[in-house]
Amino acid sequence: MYHFQTVKHVIHGPDSLNSLSDKLALLDTPLQRVVLVTQNAMHQLGVTERVVAQLEAKSIAVTVVDDVEIEPTLENIEGVFRRAVAPAAPDALIAIGGGSVLDAAKLFAVLLTNDMPLRDMLGIDKVPNAGAPMVLVPTTSGTGSEVTPNAIVTLPDEELKIGVVSRHLLPTLVILDATLTLGLPKPITAATGMDAFTHSLESFISTKANPISDTFALESMRLIAGSIVEAYQQPGSVQARSDMLLGSMYGGLALTAAGTAAVHALAYPLGGKFHVTHGVANAMLLPHVMAFNMDACAPRLKRAACVCGLARETDSDEVAARKLIDQISAWTATLEIPQNLRDFGVAEEHLADMAVAASKVTRLMVNNPKALSLDDIQQLYRCLLP
Amino acid sequence: MYHFQTVKHVIHGPDSLNSLSDKLALLDTPLQRVVLVTQNAMHQLGVTERVVAQLEAKSIAVTVVDDVEIEPTLENIEGVFRRAVAPAAPDALIAIGGGSVLDAAKLFAVLLTNDMPLRDMLGIDKVPNAGAPMVLVPTTSGTGSEVTPNAIVTLPDEELKIGVVSRHLLPTLVILDATLTLGLPKPITAATGMDAFTHSLESFISTKANPISDTFALESMRLIAGSIVEAYQQPGSVQARSDMLLGSMYGGLALTAAGTAAVHALAYPLGGKFHVTHGVANAMLLPHVMAFNMDACAPRLKRAACVCGLARETDSDEVAARKLIDQISAWTATLEIPQNLRDFGVAEEHLADMAVAASKVTRLMVNNPKALSLDDIQQLYRCLLP
Repeated sequence: MYHFQTVKHVIHGPDSLNSLSDKLALLDTPLQRVVLVTQNAMHQLGVTERVVAQLEAKSIAVTVVDDVEIEPTLENIEGVFRRAVAPAAPDALIAIGGGSVLDAAKLFAVLLTNDMPLRDMLGIDKVPNAGAPMVLVPTTSGTGSEVTPNAIVTLPDEELKIGVVSRHLLPTLVILDATLTLGLPKPITAATGMDAFTHSLESFISTKANPISDTFALESMRLIAGSIVEAYQQPGSVQARSDMLLGSMYGGLALTAAGTAAVHALAYPLGGKFHVTHGVANAMLLPHVMAFNMDACAPRLKRAACVCGLARETDSDEVAARKLIDQISAWTATLEIPQNLRDFGVAEEHLADMAVAASKVTRLMVNNPKALSLDDIQQLYRCLLP
Repeated sequence: MYHFQTVKHVIHGPDSLNSLSDKLALLDTPLQRVVLVTQNAMHQLGVTERVVAQLEAKSIAVTVVDDVEIEPTLENIEGVFRRAVAPAAPDALIAIGGGSVLDAAKLFAVLLTNDMPLRDMLGIDKVPNAGAPMVLVPTTSGTGSEVTPNAIVTLPDEELKIGVVSRHLLPTLVILDATLTLGLPKPITAATGMDAFTHSLESFISTKANPISDTFALESMRLIAGSIVEAYQQPGSVQARSDMLLGSMYGGLALTAAGTAAVHALAYPLGGKFHVTHGVANAMLLPHVMAFNMDACAPRLKRAACVCGLARETDSDEVAARKLIDQISAWTATLEIPQNLRDFGVAEEHLADMAVAASKVTRLMVNNPKALSLDDIQQLYRCLLP
């Protein structure tokens, strides 16, 4: 038995953000005031202005909030909430941005309806009441945050990132408008795209994989495999960007149901101490961890390879799995993902502590199809210290 | 741009109904009284008794409603509502049954919160307010009613079936428990299973098909193709029944997003006048209508054939499409679906009127990839008058 959860409404298509004000009826609540959480890049593209005009034309007052940090701290979230969100007393929240912006909006929504400090919400199912209605509009492909019940906050004193996990973090409406992603810087297209692929592949080989997560994981990988290089090399390709957005959302649905595994666990110490961004860390680790996992999940790696058009049904499990792993390595090269942890200040002497830190992420390690010893983890990091 | 809508929570797995009372927390509403809409077969299997005991153990009072007719009339729905549902003043509705039971519960939910006659709800988006929270548990695979925003009522005076279509008909929670379908009579397994396949194939070739509906349509066809014969020949196979239930739900998601087409349009006059059940009518018509459609959608029929394992990538579109159509015909024979409309009282002299009636279902006809003349429709019916 497994539980699958998702959002009620998804609107997908180029320029679909233009119909935002019409689609707000799907929230089933009268709207007089909304908070729009977004980021500078959206001001520069004129998106903020267009959205505010759309809403004001429907007599909805808008408070724009644009000072959520990247990978925000608990203090940043609570500070912005107290200063800008709570005083606006919005009937709903609209968020247009990357994973950090969407995560922040999700937390604002439950802070509005739960009179408790954010710190007490950290962990699983600690949020008692449903939040304010939300519309989430991702501008990277991506974290999949628009469809996950998770929001990550940083606790700098503890050198720790920690999650709020609650069904109340799911929005009512998601809008996937690929035109918002056309201007993404190439390194972000690369890192977030590989992050999305990692979500789906790890969900697919997770010990918690189930038939519904498999549906989304496989289709996500097929969509991303067919579009990630095009999105990187021809940033203006609306079709590639649109497939990436859908593939990324499917990755979020898959990981919510099945969880991620060792790649994400090993990425944590790289982010916390060495400031390797989440997507880059996952992309660097992915081929090496999958090669390690191969003997435990070759038939699943073959199925992913076949769905992505990278192998034939007549290939052996091992040959097909190897083709998938080789393609992932080829992508990291084509997408110019960093390959050397020394560039981030990691040296042999750090590996023992990093391995201990990664091994403590048991929440994710238990999802991996093969157990990792401390030696195994060090050996995997060593692949990235050529 | 397209809109995809679904339910927030799905629980899937054998015996998952046993955790119903624990999962009611997902409704996010305090529950003191519920109405359980179900049917006699569930009493006989002891399901009703078990569910009532589960709920009463949580101090929830249960009113059991079991007199919804098969393919209910407007009068039946309103009568049961006034007599049994409204006086119980439930906080939520739970429905366990086939498509008619689920459709009735969906209508009860909105009748509870909208002070208007059912007749005024007929049509698209005529229901102003959200309904009472619902849990829907299908016992056939199936109509997909558990995830569609549609409920069908019969207007006998007008010899007409008509739908209420509203997002407020979607439940909060769906439970897919294959053990409830193990005792289905073979003809119902056959007809409802082919109905589900028809939903997915028609959605996949619909002019309104979109990337999300395609995801569900293809995976639905793959699941059903792999399990329909086993579910029929070995009714106790939990795995086959479980795949059928998921495939059927996916069919409902696909048709909500993309619509059905000419098969469903041609099935209407067979149901209204000659009382051919919905699933049987669709199954009889499916191979013939697809053969007619072939030149307009052969590449899509090939893709469906490949996903179902019925054709090779190296086959031409036409060869692969033909393999799919031949398999559908083979299924209707293996599953002992009636093949002759004369057995239902249809004769050559009825075809002209039937063709006119079918051609008037323009809501579905516009989704078909190829236009049908009145002659085309008559010719298709004639395939079933050997």
